[in-house]
Amino acid sequence: MMLDTSHEYDGAAQTVLERCDLLATFSEEPGRVTRRFATPPMHQVHEALSGWLRAAGMAVEMDAIGNLIGRYEASQPGAPTLLLGSHLDTVRDAGKYDGLLGVMVALACLERLAARGERLPFNIELLGFADEEGLRYQSVYIGSKAMTGRFDPQALALLDADGISLADALRSFGAQPDPVLLTTPRWSPEALLGYCEVHIEQGPVLEAQGLPLAVVTSIVGQQRLIFKLRGEQGHAGTLPMGLRHDALCAAAEFVLEVETLGRSVPGLVATVGQLQVLPGASNVVPGEVHLSLDIRHEDDDLRNRYSSQLYVQAEHICALRGVRLTCERVQNSRTVFCAPDLVGRWQQALRAEGYPVFALASGAGHDAVALSALTAISMLFVRCRGGISHHPAEAVLRKDVAAALAVLERFLLLTAKVVGA
Amino acid sequence: MMLDTSHEYDGAAQTVLERCDLLATFSEEPGRVTRRFATPPMHQVHEALSGWLRAAGMAVEMDAIGNLIGRYEASQPGAPTLLLGSHLDTVRDAGKYDGLLGVMVALACLERLAARGERLPFNIELLGFADEEGLRYQSVYIGSKAMTGRFDPQALALLDADGISLADALRSFGAQPDPVLLTTPRWSPEALLGYCEVHIEQGPVLEAQGLPLAVVTSIVGQQRLIFKLRGEQGHAGTLPMGLRHDALCAAAEFVLEVETLGRSVPGLVATVGQLQVLPGASNVVPGEVHLSLDIRHEDDDLRNRYSSQLYVQAEHICALRGVRLTCERVQNSRTVFCAPDLVGRWQQALRAEGYPVFALASGAGHDAVALSALTAISMLFVRCRGGISHHPAEAVLRKDVAAALAVLERFLLLTAKVVGA
Repeated sequence: MMLDTSHEYDGAAQTVLERCDLLATFSEEPGRVTRRFATPPMHQVHEALSGWLRAAGMAVEMDAIGNLIGRYEASQPGAPTLLLGSHLDTVRDAGKYDGLLGVMVALACLERLAARGERLPFNIELLGFADEEGLRYQSVYIGSKAMTGRFDPQALALLDADGISLADALRSFGAQPDPVLLTTPRWSPEALLGYCEVHIEQGPVLEAQGLPLAVVTSIVGQQRLIFKLRGEQGHAGTLPMGLRHDALCAAAEFVLEVETLGRSVPGLVATVGQLQVLPGASNVVPGEVHLSLDIRHEDDDLRNRYSSQLYVQAEHICALRGVRLTCERVQNSRTVFCAPDLVGRWQQALRAEGYPVFALASGAGHDAVALSALTAISMLFVRCRGGISHHPAEAVLRKDVAAALAVLERFLLLTAKVVGA
Repeated sequence: MMLDTSHEYDGAAQTVLERCDLLATFSEEPGRVTRRFATPPMHQVHEALSGWLRAAGMAVEMDAIGNLIGRYEASQPGAPTLLLGSHLDTVRDAGKYDGLLGVMVALACLERLAARGERLPFNIELLGFADEEGLRYQSVYIGSKAMTGRFDPQALALLDADGISLADALRSFGAQPDPVLLTTPRWSPEALLGYCEVHIEQGPVLEAQGLPLAVVTSIVGQQRLIFKLRGEQGHAGTLPMGLRHDALCAAAEFVLEVETLGRSVPGLVATVGQLQVLPGASNVVPGEVHLSLDIRHEDDDLRNRYSSQLYVQAEHICALRGVRLTCERVQNSRTVFCAPDLVGRWQQALRAEGYPVFALASGAGHDAVALSALTAISMLFVRCRGGISHHPAEAVLRKDVAAALAVLERFLLLTAKVVGA
């Protein structure tokens, strides 16, 4: 039986949803939610969020890369700091909850503490990250990387689609693109208790399980590879089947091998998401195919092994068909594990609030990956409708938001016990 | 043992090749062969070809659609007419021989007759068609259709990429876009002995057989269909394999079914030449795939049956995967058979010149299809290197051109016997 303490949080959950509705109106595109790094709509979000933070008695500042930070002071000076947060930017034609929900849930939680005049034995910094999606500069985790001092100053010269450099975008935004600030961590690691991010799942597992929340165990590593298959172009009417070296047929075999492997290995996801046929005319036998392989698994060794295995399978398919194969690895990130003590505390919080404990690896990347360079990380996933994300149809249930509020508040109180002990 | 009478034709074959080299320089694009309907380079081709035709004592005219016609008079008035010809336009970045070779071989053959002062008991009209490839107006057989009176006057309003109408293009070219002329056949059928076209094979069969020439038995019909597969888009990291409805995986299964069927049925060619993945991002499970199916077989009933069979297979694949399927037939042409008496005469000519008789169905379309509306048709294929066509690497052997000259001359002499009898 699932206890339900969430009704206590219904009002706050409603506020969270209304704020997500409001912030979604701050967009670069009429009728769609599109909010890139350091744009006027991002400034509107900062204005609104700053107002709510200050109203809850928090100090507010913006850093050199345009992250917004609200600080909820500890009960005594010299206390350590716990980081909460998520990102404020969106993809193009986004939903309302990816990123924003985590910031709004943390805000609502701190407002409840503030309303009770409750101080904890640690500071809380609520971080609204400037750029996680990378839509404007095709770069990942700009905001969180700068906060940990891992920003690459060469990125200041990146140009957006309108030819505006990242440095100029920051200046227009009222931030200081100072290479020293951007490469200096905001905190020393020993002052930190860890980083906790609430985020929609962006996948269908919680819905399939009938559960509102999951504790994240890791953010799984991924490899991205580009395969190029070069066969022989020919006339679709005059080249007999037996004399063909059709690059698309070879690619089709490979796509199905990828799917078969992905289905046979628990926890593995393997996807061909891009596939381009050259020359791409209905009456020409395909001469060349370029395709992408995205492969993710929590276990770095297993992931590498399966990636190599798929390459060997592609080589085999191509060799039998007289098709040449080249392969380039364009991304390779290791799995980042959530800190066991934080995971344990989230589980304790779930149990205390009457929710089943459910663990999930995150197949998507998050700012937590960048924060892991500096401190222990953890995440709480919230069920989203149909697993849909990066789409206007993104939706969450109010009762699930209430559950996330209850569990986050409980997590903070449990943390207080640990720090106080 | 293959008799080789072709050395007698070596000089003429050399002339044919040199003329193809020269005409290839008349192009819309520097360094590439691109010659569309009714363009200045086409005018240059007309100038050169007219000069050669007149030098051989032939009357030259251009018709209302911009076909160039040279007339070699019969030995007596009131004689019937045999048509020879091929097209003068090219694809973009073409080779030198597709179309042109047939016109140059016929010209060289008539020059030999003229040099000997030899008249035949029938007129010969050498037709240089204005547009077979359809590059400028995405329309097929404009030139040959107008000659048979099957031109659709509505096509006069078609616009090219620069917004120039077909009618205006004709006026600039010095032709008369007169709807009456364009819909009136140039000949009455009873005055015609048939149409004969020499053309490069555009496929690898003759090369694989080690033969210079083939008699064409038919121009095979084709169906072109567009399939749209709609699955469910999702996040490549968060959507477990078991919950996916990946449109590309369904498409890959279908591509391999198409290949398997094509390989198992003699004379069938089936090709997926276009395949577009939506949204086409490496980290997104494909939600939608659009693909083309080109299917050709000489037997109309068989072709229709296999096309239906593939549709049923696609439906089955999609149903099992929870993917929706729609299919649209965008082209459906019947097989056009070459006239048995002309085919027999070509075979007789091959034997007489010492070449093995080899028959081949044409998988590609030709002006002969349009001419078949008015008269009996036939074609002679010439081996091309590697089966390559529609590409700058198009190449033919001089000795194969000499063989074509010998066989065409013999064909004309055999026709003279038939007409004279």
